[in-house]
Amino acid sequence: MAVTETQATTDLEFVRQLGQQLRVDSIRCSTAAGSGHPTSSMSAADLIAVLIARYLQYDWAHPKDPNNDHLIFSKGHASPLYYAMLKAVGAVTDAEMMTFRKFGSRLQGHPTPAIPWVDVATGSLGQGLPIAVGVALAGKYLDKLPYHVWCLCGDSELAEGSIWEALDKAGFYELSNLTAILDVNRLGQRGETEYGWNTDIYRRRAEAYGCTPVVIDGHDLTAVDRALGSSLSNTGRPTVVIAKTIKGKGFPEIENKDGWHGKALPPDMAERAIKELGGIRNLKIKTGRPERGTPAQKRKDGSSAAPKVTLPTYRKEDKVATRKAYGDALLALAAIPDVVAMDGEVSNSTHADEFAHAHKDRFFEIYIAEQQLVATAVGMSVRGYKPFASTFAAFFSRAYDFIRMAGISQANIRLVGSHAGVEIGQDGPSQMALEDIASMRAIHSSTVLYPSDPNQTAKLTQLMAGLDGIAYMRTTRGAYPTIYGPNETFKVGGAKVVRQSPKDRVTLIGAGVTLHNCLDAADALAKKRIAARVIDLYSVKPVDVKTLREAARVTTGRFVIVEDHYPEGGIAAAVMEAFAEEGGLHVAHLAVKGLPTSGTPQELMNAAGISAKQIVAAATKLAARK
Amino acid sequence: MAVTETQATTDLEFVRQLGQQLRVDSIRCSTAAGSGHPTSSMSAADLIAVLIARYLQYDWAHPKDPNNDHLIFSKGHASPLYYAMLKAVGAVTDAEMMTFRKFGSRLQGHPTPAIPWVDVATGSLGQGLPIAVGVALAGKYLDKLPYHVWCLCGDSELAEGSIWEALDKAGFYELSNLTAILDVNRLGQRGETEYGWNTDIYRRRAEAYGCTPVVIDGHDLTAVDRALGSSLSNTGRPTVVIAKTIKGKGFPEIENKDGWHGKALPPDMAERAIKELGGIRNLKIKTGRPERGTPAQKRKDGSSAAPKVTLPTYRKEDKVATRKAYGDALLALAAIPDVVAMDGEVSNSTHADEFAHAHKDRFFEIYIAEQQLVATAVGMSVRGYKPFASTFAAFFSRAYDFIRMAGISQANIRLVGSHAGVEIGQDGPSQMALEDIASMRAIHSSTVLYPSDPNQTAKLTQLMAGLDGIAYMRTTRGAYPTIYGPNETFKVGGAKVVRQSPKDRVTLIGAGVTLHNCLDAADALAKKRIAARVIDLYSVKPVDVKTLREAARVTTGRFVIVEDHYPEGGIAAAVMEAFAEEGGLHVAHLAVKGLPTSGTPQELMNAAGISAKQIVAAATKLAARK
Repeated sequence: MAVTETQATTDLEFVRQLGQQLRVDSIRCSTAAGSGHPTSSMSAADLIAVLIARYLQYDWAHPKDPNNDHLIFSKGHASPLYYAMLKAVGAVTDAEMMTFRKFGSRLQGHPTPAIPWVDVATGSLGQGLPIAVGVALAGKYLDKLPYHVWCLCGDSELAEGSIWEALDKAGFYELSNLTAILDVNRLGQRGETEYGWNTDIYRRRAEAYGCTPVVIDGHDLTAVDRALGSSLSNTGRPTVVIAKTIKGKGFPEIENKDGWHGKALPPDMAERAIKELGGIRNLKIKTGRPERGTPAQKRKDGSSAAPKVTLPTYRKEDKVATRKAYGDALLALAAIPDVVAMDGEVSNSTHADEFAHAHKDRFFEIYIAEQQLVATAVGMSVRGYKPFASTFAAFFSRAYDFIRMAGISQANIRLVGSHAGVEIGQDGPSQMALEDIASMRAIHSSTVLYPSDPNQTAKLTQLMAGLDGIAYMRTTRGAYPTIYGPNETFKVGGAKVVRQSPKDRVTLIGAGVTLHNCLDAADALAKKRIAARVIDLYSVKPVDVKTLREAARVTTGRFVIVEDHYPEGGIAAAVMEAFAEEGGLHVAHLAVKGLPTSGTPQELMNAAGISAKQIVAAATKLAARK
Repeated sequence: MAVTETQATTDLEFVRQLGQQLRVDSIRCSTAAGSGHPTSSMSAADLIAVLIARYLQYDWAHPKDPNNDHLIFSKGHASPLYYAMLKAVGAVTDAEMMTFRKFGSRLQGHPTPAIPWVDVATGSLGQGLPIAVGVALAGKYLDKLPYHVWCLCGDSELAEGSIWEALDKAGFYELSNLTAILDVNRLGQRGETEYGWNTDIYRRRAEAYGCTPVVIDGHDLTAVDRALGSSLSNTGRPTVVIAKTIKGKGFPEIENKDGWHGKALPPDMAERAIKELGGIRNLKIKTGRPERGTPAQKRKDGSSAAPKVTLPTYRKEDKVATRKAYGDALLALAAIPDVVAMDGEVSNSTHADEFAHAHKDRFFEIYIAEQQLVATAVGMSVRGYKPFASTFAAFFSRAYDFIRMAGISQANIRLVGSHAGVEIGQDGPSQMALEDIASMRAIHSSTVLYPSDPNQTAKLTQLMAGLDGIAYMRTTRGAYPTIYGPNETFKVGGAKVVRQSPKDRVTLIGAGVTLHNCLDAADALAKKRIAARVIDLYSVKPVDVKTLREAARVTTGRFVIVEDHYPEGGIAAAVMEAFAEEGGLHVAHLAVKGLPTSGTPQELMNAAGISAKQIVAAATKLAARK
């Protein structure tokens, strides 16, 4: 390798050389890997060269410094460029850069927080910008620090509605601390993008979303320099730099040619390209150091002691919906200064409105845009806040890809979905979450909680504040009897045996509303002289294997599992997966097997076969089993 | 009830009366139900009155007439208005209208295809318009019929990115046969919408998306009339009627007042309102009858005989990726004239490009907009086509809410997700579907298929063409040995025993890539004198209970289940759910338990613990179990 160490300067000729180095390195590491996206990196190389040479304020030695700018590659497939940039700023060595995409390397196919400078995993297009909006919201309204959020987007991903949800909120919340850089290289994976180089369409849209568009030639360094510079002085509006670029720029054999997306150059071609681009360089750039400052929100917490949270409590005679208890508990958790909340325009139903009214400065109304709702939570998690995002449980399905990616990003977010199951009644199946437990259980790093009682809900909400990963809680629309006293304790991975005797012949397992049905059924079974153990499986993931095993032992594996959820992948699956190696279970599984309609909650639970009388029938049959 | 039958005329005074009737009936049925959204109905009553009196061409006696216009309530919560309209056109009686939201009534809380005039279930906001775009695409490019697609949207849902994905495609595909009517009543569920009555923002956005916006006062009947009329003569562009309206219009006590979303009026208030609105009416309107015509696409199929499909076949020595076989089979299925396809800008990876190149007229490039991708499929299913939509399996998670709603809509769509699991290798976890089996299994009416071999893939693709409901197939990136001959048969709910002997001591269960690992493991186990049965569980939902039971009997419940998927809710859950009542299983469950990185497929399968050697270890341990 030619060693051409150069002192960092910021004259544009140096920046030009830096851009060429980024291209060369993008080619080198992807050719070494035998896969990757060099051409998508080459189109954006000049944009990134100008950014890191002149505008980005970042202390690479301290990636968690709250004053750092943020740089998110929404087009995560330009990872070769990202890693080439890390080499140029001295964060990784050339040797490490060359481990790209190899097993065991932290430089994965798409960037992930396996490396400390990456805020979030990208690679599912249309997500980086929404998350950047979340970070920028934190910067402007919580941290109140001057850091800038830069986001590199591809043009293919501009077809995703989530990009426009993001720009909409960026405009609405006047995020002048955000710059989206659109790398309009015209070519997508399988041909021309929807609008090719018609940058005017993007300009008009950005404008219509309350952003300041700047259309430039993305290889004209002076123009790039001016555009990025102007975005720092933009007030009241986010900037959208719309850069017309050439895919594969710098190597005429592949420049602007179809068929070169996501392909490493073969070694001989790579050699020619590197030569064309001026050979291997080793330029180093010193990015600007960020200004000092302390996040405003955190400053409020003067003491180092843990903040005192006084949870709401409920009396045995109270009937309080778990969604209401969630709202009460969230309000109490406001004592923790880094607890923040956001909702999708249904806070009067989820009861996040209690927090919203009392702590306007820490509540973000995202309106009916669930992808941006979750992205905002992820962005705030990047800045170390403890976000609680709420909407109807059914509508988190709108953001499922964002939740999936949040798991890969190792984000710490809390999602609370209300109005779950047929229990919601008259509104009908469009508003019923009947697949949320299955889908949320299958998320990496997820915890799934489903309380049945207000005291329990309050305790679980508090637990969630301290949880890492994706914590999901399902709350219920209706109000049911209070089961637990305010001093009862709960834990992630716990379960409660709410009825038991040594003579138990069958175990009834429910959570949320079906726990109440199980308790009613146990009463009815007692009259039939069938002693039934009742387990509250409030922690659906992870499940309490020990309590389940003990119940299986006592009731010789006779379980009636009842869930207000479709039969697949829900509570019964959680139990059976936990017992996989044990064997010996004999499960009657009551779940929502058909498509529900409208009706009262009781009518719909009867129709679905999950109400007390059906539990009694199933348990009676199972108890008779030898 | 005052019986005021009036002959249908279309003078505007009659239309005004009709609008008042729609309001009165919206109030009546929701007050009788004790829940519902009368105020959201009242704001749009004049819009719908003009539409049905003067523009909608619809034969209510023949809802499946291909010449009918389509009317989709994207704001599904305005269901009282929808049902009041059905009464006004004579499709339902007043008595049936009054069963709204009651158990057993087909007039559910939000409209569903339980009634024949409803194309799709709505109620999850931001979905009706994308589906309307799908219907309009079918109208313009497949049916080539003059029917018009009308879609009533709320203003709250304009915050959903999916609305803009839809308008983007409507503009791009020049759907002048589509009119979106935006009921801008300023108030959402919990207060003012993001932009209130700032109709200019919506105007500029609609314009930027290639649509013709018309801003009107939605209670000025002349203006409404002109706007709807103009949309029929609009060429080359969809029309977006932006109607400023008043929530609760017609009853001053609640007009434009917060706190009245989703609330039925109490009986006394309802009485006052009905009086204010001129009392109960019984006006009937004869909507225009549609022009006659025959769908162009279907006409191509001159004969009444079933079209002959010649599936591709593969030799034992071929190594062909299942995604490639899918592309080949889809191309063969083009012999069926109502097979259509769409892809999210990755058709060269999913191999839908074979169909796209050969049948440009039946292929729709949706670019990277997975919500619109699924919505397009649903819209074409409304028109009786057999859509196959494809993208990377991971990215269907972007459209999970649309898939959930498609299940409720009883749509018949086929989704094919390629590049599933850690098997994809270097691209890393953002591109790996590791939760798709769990999430897709939990969809109402879903079928989940996961082939391992090209002949099988071709057969299953053909089966999918005939399936009702949501059929999902997971295909694999890499090429593996061909297992089956071209004459092998497969069925939904089937499984194949690919290795067996009466001495089998353990059963290995895999599907897709893990079936190949199971076969390798069985070879290795044979050398250790452990006879292993191998089951190809290609139909993950429904599963073949009989084959599994027989295997459990022979191998005394010893199952090694191997899946390239997170442990929750996937193949093992499918098996265990099927055995719930049986008991006796002893399952070693090999799945992707950590967060994968980049690497070769083999490295990643090893790291995840799902490769042959780990299957051997698990099977050996299990076989030794008493």
